[in-house]
Amino acid sequence: MTSAPRAERPLAFFAFVMNTASHMVHGTWRRADGGQRDFEEIGLWISLAQRLERGGFDALFFADVSGLYGDFRGSWSHHVRTGMQFPTHDPLVTLSALAVSTETLGLALTAGPIQEQPFGFARRMSTLDHISRGRVAWNIVTGGRTNDARNYGLDEPLPHDERYDWADEYLDVLYKLWEGSWEDDALVKDRLSGVYADPEKVHKIHHRSNRYRVEGPHLVSPSPQRTPVLFQAGGSPRGREFAARHAEAQFIAAPRPESARALVTETRALVEAGGRAGSDLLFFQGLSFVVGSTEDEARRKRDELEAEIDLETTIAHVGSALGIDLVGYGLDARLVDVLPDRVNGTRSALTWVREAIGAADPTVADLARLVTGQSRVVGTPEQIADRLAEWRAAGIDGINVINETLPGSYTDFIEHVMPVLRERGLARSEPAAGTLRHRLFGHDRLDDRHPAARHRVSGTPRPGPDSPAPVANGAPSR
Amino acid sequence: MTSAPRAERPLAFFAFVMNTASHMVHGTWRRADGGQRDFEEIGLWISLAQRLERGGFDALFFADVSGLYGDFRGSWSHHVRTGMQFPTHDPLVTLSALAVSTETLGLALTAGPIQEQPFGFARRMSTLDHISRGRVAWNIVTGGRTNDARNYGLDEPLPHDERYDWADEYLDVLYKLWEGSWEDDALVKDRLSGVYADPEKVHKIHHRSNRYRVEGPHLVSPSPQRTPVLFQAGGSPRGREFAARHAEAQFIAAPRPESARALVTETRALVEAGGRAGSDLLFFQGLSFVVGSTEDEARRKRDELEAEIDLETTIAHVGSALGIDLVGYGLDARLVDVLPDRVNGTRSALTWVREAIGAADPTVADLARLVTGQSRVVGTPEQIADRLAEWRAAGIDGINVINETLPGSYTDFIEHVMPVLRERGLARSEPAAGTLRHRLFGHDRLDDRHPAARHRVSGTPRPGPDSPAPVANGAPSR
Repeated sequence: MTSAPRAERPLAFFAFVMNTASHMVHGTWRRADGGQRDFEEIGLWISLAQRLERGGFDALFFADVSGLYGDFRGSWSHHVRTGMQFPTHDPLVTLSALAVSTETLGLALTAGPIQEQPFGFARRMSTLDHISRGRVAWNIVTGGRTNDARNYGLDEPLPHDERYDWADEYLDVLYKLWEGSWEDDALVKDRLSGVYADPEKVHKIHHRSNRYRVEGPHLVSPSPQRTPVLFQAGGSPRGREFAARHAEAQFIAAPRPESARALVTETRALVEAGGRAGSDLLFFQGLSFVVGSTEDEARRKRDELEAEIDLETTIAHVGSALGIDLVGYGLDARLVDVLPDRVNGTRSALTWVREAIGAADPTVADLARLVTGQSRVVGTPEQIADRLAEWRAAGIDGINVINETLPGSYTDFIEHVMPVLRERGLARSEPAAGTLRHRLFGHDRLDDRHPAARHRVSGTPRPGPDSPAPVANGAPSR
Repeated sequence: MTSAPRAERPLAFFAFVMNTASHMVHGTWRRADGGQRDFEEIGLWISLAQRLERGGFDALFFADVSGLYGDFRGSWSHHVRTGMQFPTHDPLVTLSALAVSTETLGLALTAGPIQEQPFGFARRMSTLDHISRGRVAWNIVTGGRTNDARNYGLDEPLPHDERYDWADEYLDVLYKLWEGSWEDDALVKDRLSGVYADPEKVHKIHHRSNRYRVEGPHLVSPSPQRTPVLFQAGGSPRGREFAARHAEAQFIAAPRPESARALVTETRALVEAGGRAGSDLLFFQGLSFVVGSTEDEARRKRDELEAEIDLETTIAHVGSALGIDLVGYGLDARLVDVLPDRVNGTRSALTWVREAIGAADPTVADLARLVTGQSRVVGTPEQIADRLAEWRAAGIDGINVINETLPGSYTDFIEHVMPVLRERGLARSEPAAGTLRHRLFGHDRLDDRHPAARHRVSGTPRPGPDSPAPVANGAPSR
């Protein structure tokens, strides 16, 4: 089918979903095949997770919110009416059901410090890492929606950079519980002597900081990964600094491969400046796909899809995410007038739009069309493989596959695209095994360069620069 | 086998377990058949839950703690060494894995206000009630251990009665989210009109009280039960007042049937004084069982078991639960000198011991032996059925079956005792179906007399005094 050279390292593939009816591509729940309409049925997720696992995906990744997006036309009615990320069910509880319904699929969830005290969150995540035998990842978010804040006792969200300070402090507690409270050989279970665990090897953490006082010890014995694989998606300067310090993988939405390459290079420099190796941080690009057996068929499907997309809800979503009620502006309003000059990433949104459409003065309509279509790759399986090879060449480690319909977007990808990707070495051919971190980095626990490692106590092994090479798309070759 | 008359209503049976190695009967994890030793293996719980379901149990109930028990011999080493409720994994995450591994078994967990903000807890429980199709129960606890408090940012636990005030406030928020935020017909899912939910029928709750400000709306659409079945176990005056107001079932540990009868009568009077029906509150007695094919065999097994029980850890457990380090006292110290005069139920503990052993002046050794053996019913299946008939006649609605070994204690009970109980009408014969609340009370949602009902908004049906009769051990016949 193709004579392209076999790529060095396969990409990792995550299915990017949300426990809701209308996640990213709005309006498609209305399609006959829009299974997300009944997202409260756990059977939908179990069958999807099993298909993904069999089909060669590495993980199922749940986005999440803790409240409504900001108002549109002065109220939240539109969000409820269109199911725009509302209602939305708890991903952590859902992932436990999926953990026992799958064997090897990675299970990633989104959560942030506003939701729960670190002691309880650490315990729940460790429990899930035990249940899944080391397949858990956590996408760390810092919030920012007003309704989220008001659901958790605050009047307004904290200012952007303070939210990252809070997350730094939250992680500090978690690292002590996950990495520092139990030594690796503390669990004895000796029937003869009656020693269940060795008290000399279990430690209270006695954490005291600005927001948290936590005595410990951690209530859960070391799980396969201890700390879950840490993902982060922040694009602001403070967000990238945070990612460079803590994250093992970053979700990005680069408008094109060359901008991804610049972002990867810049962020890896930050990672190295902080004393970690550049290859300690992986990059996952978000993309959606429309597959046809011919280019014409793919375009026809794309046109059909675009006619079904709810553009108004897309504007509501994007505007709310940017903190502005975009409906106050006409579709031909200039973005430079619409996006206020504030620290929370909106100027970079303008840059992003300019770069993506190649126009100096984009409009609101350009933005909406861009959001619904920019991340979409349309073509035959071979054409899609060509595009993915470009992303790979730009330094991307994995793809976060956005869906239009559940499970259709993933079954299409698995049936038609995956075989070509495997043939070209762009997707792994061998079955998955072991912990999620081992698959991504070649070791089960955080490496020794990570800031969590300094909380380890005697007896905990420290996978470091000399740890074994990763089995899949890992770091050493970079 | 027996000519005893068929009882009017069957008892409900809950398996009382904890996500830990040493829950109630300490030392038995050392037995070859002590499967709880490997409690972190989810396979243990899945296979247990499936056995319980097939064997006619109504629910699996997880006890829980949020930290260590108080010191024994001046430290917490003993608890770690003997696995005394440490480590212990999160029950909520675990129950989701069990929900998709079973069809009809009720799933009960223990949690309290200290662990999580009400907004997030409401969301997790609603998610679990969706996943399990309405099989969730919640045992409301108010905490009291110092380490629990220190894991969640407090220096010391709040005083006993204030903890109940806190729980009252917590429940108030939960009721608004579970019962008042979504009308029953708010979820539309109309593909043609594009209306996913009706904004007129989804409400913010705008809660403001001493500890909580929660805007809402609830992020989850109405689950089969909305509010999970509410259990409570407090025995203090304030605890019983709380149970009379909120609980649908109370776990008790009466020393004998006649004291259970008195407790049931007294508490039901409190329930009625608050405007609910006495039958709105069910009573579950905690008991363990040693079954033999002859009385001699049962006694032999009992003696063997008692030789294996770790009496020291039992003293550590009981002392810590009472807030005193009992090792400071000799085994022959008089309990009247040991138990301080405080409000937190310790005087009632003395009364309980006196009544259970029929002695006016019990010792520490009496207490320890009592705790390890008092709740144990030893005999042939027929003898056990006789004893359970006495508890039933005293007004008990269900049995919380304590285990010595997992899964052995339950497989013994299921194989040998359940058939006799079914024959005598003491256990249900028909297969379980529907929501847990429907099985216990004959309706899926809280009845109209419950304090949560006043938060309902137009459109929510109110099962009241005229609601259909329960299918199993329900209320109306009392």
